[in-house]
Amino acid sequence: EIQTVLMSTSARLFRSSPLTVRLRAALRPLCPHSTLTCTARLSPADVHSPFLACGSGQFVASTRKLHVEPKSSPDGAPERLPFSKVTEEDLAYFRKILAGRTITDPDLLESSNVDWLKTVKGSSEVLLRPQTTEEVSQILSYCNSRNLAVNPQGGNTGLVGGSVPVYDEIILSTSLMNNILTFDNISGILTCQAGCVLENLSLYLEERDYIMPLDLGAKGSCQIGGNVATNAGGLRLLRYGSLHGTVLGLEVVLADGRVLDCLATLRKDNTGYDLKQLFIGSEGTLGVITAVSILCPRKPKSTNVVFLGCETFEELLKTFQLCRGMLGEILSAFEFLDSECMRLLNTHLKLPNPITDCPFYIVIETSGSDQDHDSQKLDNFLEKAMASTLVTDGTVATEQSKIKDLWSMRERVTEALTHDGFTYKYDISLPVERIYQLVTDMRQHLGDRAKSVVGYGHVGDGNLHLNITSPAKDPALLAAIEPFVYEWTASCQGSISAEHGLGLKKRNYIYYSKPSQAVALMGNIKAMLDPKGILNPYKTLPDDLK
Amino acid sequence: EIQTVLMSTSARLFRSSPLTVRLRAALRPLCPHSTLTCTARLSPADVHSPFLACGSGQFVASTRKLHVEPKSSPDGAPERLPFSKVTEEDLAYFRKILAGRTITDPDLLESSNVDWLKTVKGSSEVLLRPQTTEEVSQILSYCNSRNLAVNPQGGNTGLVGGSVPVYDEIILSTSLMNNILTFDNISGILTCQAGCVLENLSLYLEERDYIMPLDLGAKGSCQIGGNVATNAGGLRLLRYGSLHGTVLGLEVVLADGRVLDCLATLRKDNTGYDLKQLFIGSEGTLGVITAVSILCPRKPKSTNVVFLGCETFEELLKTFQLCRGMLGEILSAFEFLDSECMRLLNTHLKLPNPITDCPFYIVIETSGSDQDHDSQKLDNFLEKAMASTLVTDGTVATEQSKIKDLWSMRERVTEALTHDGFTYKYDISLPVERIYQLVTDMRQHLGDRAKSVVGYGHVGDGNLHLNITSPAKDPALLAAIEPFVYEWTASCQGSISAEHGLGLKKRNYIYYSKPSQAVALMGNIKAMLDPKGILNPYKTLPDDLK
Repeated sequence: EIQTVLMSTSARLFRSSPLTVRLRAALRPLCPHSTLTCTARLSPADVHSPFLACGSGQFVASTRKLHVEPKSSPDGAPERLPFSKVTEEDLAYFRKILAGRTITDPDLLESSNVDWLKTVKGSSEVLLRPQTTEEVSQILSYCNSRNLAVNPQGGNTGLVGGSVPVYDEIILSTSLMNNILTFDNISGILTCQAGCVLENLSLYLEERDYIMPLDLGAKGSCQIGGNVATNAGGLRLLRYGSLHGTVLGLEVVLADGRVLDCLATLRKDNTGYDLKQLFIGSEGTLGVITAVSILCPRKPKSTNVVFLGCETFEELLKTFQLCRGMLGEILSAFEFLDSECMRLLNTHLKLPNPITDCPFYIVIETSGSDQDHDSQKLDNFLEKAMASTLVTDGTVATEQSKIKDLWSMRERVTEALTHDGFTYKYDISLPVERIYQLVTDMRQHLGDRAKSVVGYGHVGDGNLHLNITSPAKDPALLAAIEPFVYEWTASCQGSISAEHGLGLKKRNYIYYSKPSQAVALMGNIKAMLDPKGILNPYKTLPDDLK
Repeated sequence: EIQTVLMSTSARLFRSSPLTVRLRAALRPLCPHSTLTCTARLSPADVHSPFLACGSGQFVASTRKLHVEPKSSPDGAPERLPFSKVTEEDLAYFRKILAGRTITDPDLLESSNVDWLKTVKGSSEVLLRPQTTEEVSQILSYCNSRNLAVNPQGGNTGLVGGSVPVYDEIILSTSLMNNILTFDNISGILTCQAGCVLENLSLYLEERDYIMPLDLGAKGSCQIGGNVATNAGGLRLLRYGSLHGTVLGLEVVLADGRVLDCLATLRKDNTGYDLKQLFIGSEGTLGVITAVSILCPRKPKSTNVVFLGCETFEELLKTFQLCRGMLGEILSAFEFLDSECMRLLNTHLKLPNPITDCPFYIVIETSGSDQDHDSQKLDNFLEKAMASTLVTDGTVATEQSKIKDLWSMRERVTEALTHDGFTYKYDISLPVERIYQLVTDMRQHLGDRAKSVVGYGHVGDGNLHLNITSPAKDPALLAAIEPFVYEWTASCQGSISAEHGLGLKKRNYIYYSKPSQAVALMGNIKAMLDPKGILNPYKTLPDDLK
């Protein structure tokens, strides 16, 4: 049951509409402790769809079906590089070391050849499913000697075409490398194989009073190895920081099959260069991550989620500042969506707005060790936010299932977008005070050429997800969006990919966010670690380096 | 005034001795809210010595004088590599670009040639003091072309001989690069030149309601560039994580003078490899850090420090577990020292024990946004810890000056050690439940060959500072300590340098904590970025790589 804080101020009213409200406690106007118990009109079918919505703009069908036939050669892909082609001898070798786990059936290969957005489709004819680091080492050693290109693949939930082959690269899936290796209940340090699904790790840890330091909507499919390889951000970054801080160790197989064992389980280790950092966010182009050691926070004893409405983005930012000051160490997420997102949620997913219609919506999460203290801090904040008319309406959830319902308003925007049409997706980092200006400017710039222009994302991290839909793929629209969006971002020293990475789709835009000296050095590192370039070719680095 | 929690349990008593106690409130036995106001017997002279003690085992004399003449060629240093020698022409070039900032006076050079511990002394004849990145670039470009070796130097507070020349390397000091560049009051992101002294940055931020995410006893001298180059840990790591997570951007001058601009001010940026990570903890061997961008936390509204006593290390660990559970998100430090440390503090610094004598002492710090909530959490924890007889005595401080006094019991151990004799220092990461076993084993192993064997450090990070003193330098003692200490550490998959780095002194022990594959790769990276090896030679990497 959602507990709805019902508050009134001189200015506006918190309202429970469109939830069906069953009064449990007497209302105490102006007192945020007044609670209502509500039954949401959300249909269970909405919540338990095969799609798991995602905070980082990623989501995943657990029963994936291809409704759209993607083009056979993706836009903007460079020419196939002169790698060898897989021969019968190669297959015989793979079958010898991976009996029953060398997949060549085209039907079985299809879902691994195409990305979730169905915009990039490769034509790989072999999928390898190793179970051990030794097997990965044997595969890469062989492929390197044979000059065979390899596409490392985790949960295949990426949004930039980084997780699928572009041509006939061999797909090396980590899906069967899904063992938890160790968990230290004192330090909270987990080690596991790369193919562990994030949600499974979360469930394992929650039973032991810990949580994963990252959370994404794609958690039901994405794998920790892929999370690390793409430096996934997600919903808990504001609180627990990036994987560069929480990942303590990695085991990586290099392009030539050498195993690099940096799988330390220590919080502090200053013995030489921190090599593992190189692989965090390298999108499988420098090595294949086979195991991960990660520092896990204690499971919070109390969690609250608030869904608020604001009249302007300026008020939203002021609410953020107020919130950081008053919620302090218990603030664990500050996310937003705009009214266009809400319209798509209503229209395509039949998710009702839990509060009154507003131009902007905020999802605030607190996580702490004392329910009373957390509630007090939250109440004080809400009282102040209402009194100063920064927010116009809101609802609070403390119970797990209702917390999920409120979170789904934020997490399922990406899913709603897929129903709206062909989606052009941008994942931008900007100084936080600028993030919505880009949406406004883009909307004005595109006029009626776009079907929808929506903005949502992680305010706390300065990370905007800008999405533009059109009824169908529209090269003229794309030409109007790009390079406008990249130039706009570069003019604010922003990042053209905050958390999604570059993959195939964004590789050539790297110069908008990185100077050429830095890109050249990346090329040197690639050449040092993978001189033949067999690992995830056509990804991350721009074509002009090759 | 120190507020001392006075509590009694059936088992043991919190006592205020040796503090002079002035009763302010009626005592309520068994209730942790009972408070006493105390006047400490700590002499102001003790607290305000010219030495700023340091949590990471580092400390710094603000009025440095060399009492001990170190050997001219340090133990274990390899042969001088065939770098060029500085000529009059070289000096003329430097004087041209750094008029008045090219130091050759031997008296002025002396303090830069020797490390704080006075165990490594170089014989550099020139100290360069650039003010801009452009000047650093010119210097390195020139030195690289001339094959002149360079020792980058920040505050020179390191403990492993990494911050001073070994032979006649040119000292490149960042001390004059001490400008704050920008501070964003909304995001809390600071950018500054590398030579900013940590304490100055802290003071600057505190005026703006923020703090630095790291804190060391060496803060009065150490520089942020050196902190980043050595991946300094310190007292706030438990709460805010490592610099790999909090440093958002770096500007680095490479060995050949190229400027690598990765000075982003974004929390999230997944555009290509995260190059800056390579330089964090590379001890100046891969490039000279010239500017830093760092994410700063909000200044806590309330801080408390507790000093507790425990009978056994097992009880100390149980106290840690209890503390993490009950203090949760407000816990910001959990440090320990043993009774041998206390003896040295009493003997050499005349610091009285603020509580009764115990085998183990704990310093716990909380930082939060609500004084009432924090006090309640702390009181609840203390009540539980006392009731379960985990701790035997304790005192609490909430006022800034008294917090400092309690902290000095932890921070000034290193200083006390220098008065005890020649000190062999070890900075070890271990699984937390093992950290004191090493001290016990070492004590037993050495018997009466050592004067003192003391253990202290960061329990929360699994980081032990093991220090062994003898009346004078003692090769036989050293032979008894090493490799025993390294083998012991390696047998627990620990790190032989948790936060101090490898520098000159520990470089050849790297294999105890890193596999040879990893060390070889470090060598490749060094060769790629600094092919002539001019940057901080003889440091970090083992001799057998050269």
